[in-house]
Amino acid sequence: MKTSFAITTMCLALGLAPPAPAEDQPSPATSNVPGAQTPSIHSDRRITFSLQAPAATSLRVAGGDGLGVGPFPMTKSTGGNWSVTTPPSVPGFHYYWFVLNGVEVNDPASETYFGYGKETSGVEVPEVGADFYAIQKVPHGEVRAKWYLSKTTAEWRRAFVYTPPGYDADSSTRYPVLILQHGSGENETGWTRQGRAQFILDNLIAAGKARPMIVVMDRGYAWPAGAPIMQQGPAEWLQGQTAFEDVVVRDLIPMIDTSYRTIPDREHRAMAGLSMGGMQTLFISLEHLDLFAYIGSFSGSIVPNMRTATGTLQPFDPKTAYGGVFADSATFNKRVKLLWLGVGTAEEGDFRARTIATVQAIRKGGVHVEYFESKDTAHEWQTWRRDLNDFAPRLFR
Amino acid sequence: MKTSFAITTMCLALGLAPPAPAEDQPSPATSNVPGAQTPSIHSDRRITFSLQAPAATSLRVAGGDGLGVGPFPMTKSTGGNWSVTTPPSVPGFHYYWFVLNGVEVNDPASETYFGYGKETSGVEVPEVGADFYAIQKVPHGEVRAKWYLSKTTAEWRRAFVYTPPGYDADSSTRYPVLILQHGSGENETGWTRQGRAQFILDNLIAAGKARPMIVVMDRGYAWPAGAPIMQQGPAEWLQGQTAFEDVVVRDLIPMIDTSYRTIPDREHRAMAGLSMGGMQTLFISLEHLDLFAYIGSFSGSIVPNMRTATGTLQPFDPKTAYGGVFADSATFNKRVKLLWLGVGTAEEGDFRARTIATVQAIRKGGVHVEYFESKDTAHEWQTWRRDLNDFAPRLFR
Repeated sequence: MKTSFAITTMCLALGLAPPAPAEDQPSPATSNVPGAQTPSIHSDRRITFSLQAPAATSLRVAGGDGLGVGPFPMTKSTGGNWSVTTPPSVPGFHYYWFVLNGVEVNDPASETYFGYGKETSGVEVPEVGADFYAIQKVPHGEVRAKWYLSKTTAEWRRAFVYTPPGYDADSSTRYPVLILQHGSGENETGWTRQGRAQFILDNLIAAGKARPMIVVMDRGYAWPAGAPIMQQGPAEWLQGQTAFEDVVVRDLIPMIDTSYRTIPDREHRAMAGLSMGGMQTLFISLEHLDLFAYIGSFSGSIVPNMRTATGTLQPFDPKTAYGGVFADSATFNKRVKLLWLGVGTAEEGDFRARTIATVQAIRKGGVHVEYFESKDTAHEWQTWRRDLNDFAPRLFR
Repeated sequence: MKTSFAITTMCLALGLAPPAPAEDQPSPATSNVPGAQTPSIHSDRRITFSLQAPAATSLRVAGGDGLGVGPFPMTKSTGGNWSVTTPPSVPGFHYYWFVLNGVEVNDPASETYFGYGKETSGVEVPEVGADFYAIQKVPHGEVRAKWYLSKTTAEWRRAFVYTPPGYDADSSTRYPVLILQHGSGENETGWTRQGRAQFILDNLIAAGKARPMIVVMDRGYAWPAGAPIMQQGPAEWLQGQTAFEDVVVRDLIPMIDTSYRTIPDREHRAMAGLSMGGMQTLFISLEHLDLFAYIGSFSGSIVPNMRTATGTLQPFDPKTAYGGVFADSATFNKRVKLLWLGVGTAEEGDFRARTIATVQAIRKGGVHVEYFESKDTAHEWQTWRRDLNDFAPRLFR
């Protein structure tokens, strides 16, 4: 498999047609609706897409980073079935969509996954040997939809709450809590649908690698009740972020501690998130070290002076960043049991470089920070699954 | 509102353009993704749909029964925005889709709901005065995703389990169980997403109208592990139904009774379902009266001799139907605390007539059966929400 993939990649790099694999029997993606034959995944991670559309005059496939550099034009058979087989993609979950006569639409053959602010098709490309996010024959926790009334926003909100295996069987045990947030354009369904966080935790707990914990996944958007809607800009952005901070601190944590058998102190509470959720995690947790002792940012933007955000990226100064929380490294290291930053090596732009620079600046000031790289993965869920798999075992030790 | 609706309906029946309502400020449907302005619902229940599609050459809206007799052709503005406002629909939840250059696609402005074997757009049209399925300021239960390994199918299955308010707070109370099934083309998400079963139960329990209960919603499809896939036909159909029966009886009920604080006897176990789920309920529960004392079929097909199904609709004979379970009415009435059949008065075909004829035949034999009609609603979720709202209060009394 690896050799086949290497040859294919080499041929594509050289502009040659790759040889057909010896046994190329593509399998329907596990992200499809039951019975759908495409998207199908080849052994070298090429993906075949198809759509019956006799009256369409233009059809392409486009998608998230890991799908490859598209869009990929599809070709029509005489029967009106359009199809394309893309070059090998990276492993993991990729959002995708069809562009049908100029309109971005879902593939009816795919389940949908909330991303880009809407329901979006997704294709799961297996990673050879990676079973840490597979559903396995181990005890399973539950994922509970929990509705609660937010005082901050005056709305009913839904959080998903993972309770570990055995939670109901022994009603005396109390558990630590990880608040785990999605990225921009996604919602509270992301970590269990795209991220498979519940299976990652099940597997870690079964192997004795992670401590049994409650994981809370909330909706990362909020607006203060009664506040007028403003024009888009830094002030509105900050008001929304502050409202979400209030939701977490004033509504969510008290509700969780009342509703579940938590250990309701900072030593047993963590927060982490991906992308926007990582940014929110740093913003909220570093401001509330009375509430959190474990902090993780998965490909999260680092906005060191959010309270005075102007819309331009500010340089990271460990003396002043995040209200100066890093300035006294001895105090910080004593209070914060874990500060963890992760990034995929294939993320676009200078994101990785900026993360590394921040880690170096923090370390230079004497503050302990863990840095994790996900090899060859982009700003996508495979990176964040690996992040969680590395982060969760370090919690509450 | 009612007068406006009557006038509009009358005008449409006469082929006249209805007058614009005095205050026609359509509101975005609650079934939309956050921020989407259409579909929007007018006060007289007309619905405006729109899609930006400059390069499309043909665009229509089509959907479920209650949306009205479509498809509804959309018209393109100079800016490339297509739109249409449909005649007043019936209240409730309607599946819909766009037909874009001949291809059925979702509306990116809508959340998706699993129906027709795939993710489908849906539009929620409010019913004036009906708040029994709204999320209200009452104690809320949880909806838990529960994974379990089926011996019958050798697959990991996901059931959703509603636990009533207070379930976790008092770990000594045990609860009765309702197994509640979706319809054909839908899946285990239907009753909580389209049906809002959790809010119906929350509201009934808060009002003291229904006894607190656990509600189990499983996936209504199964195939025996290792069995060869057959051609479609009555034999395959029966094998699939029998496999689902085995899942319920051998896998699901034991798993639920082990995992949750149930009262694990027939007097505290009910089964109900809609459409295909109603058919399955009659098939399974009437065969297993040792397991169920309460039975509900919501617009369910009545297939009186499923064990020998030939693919043609058989006449209902209370002496032989369902293995002759109705033949001894005294015994049946003593064992079965509730047999409940419901139908919407606007369901297509002779479905209502056949249900009434069955009810009459059953009653003629001396068997007690409750019959419920949902006024003016079709083979749609508004019928089944009303069904559940009537059925649940009758359970476990």
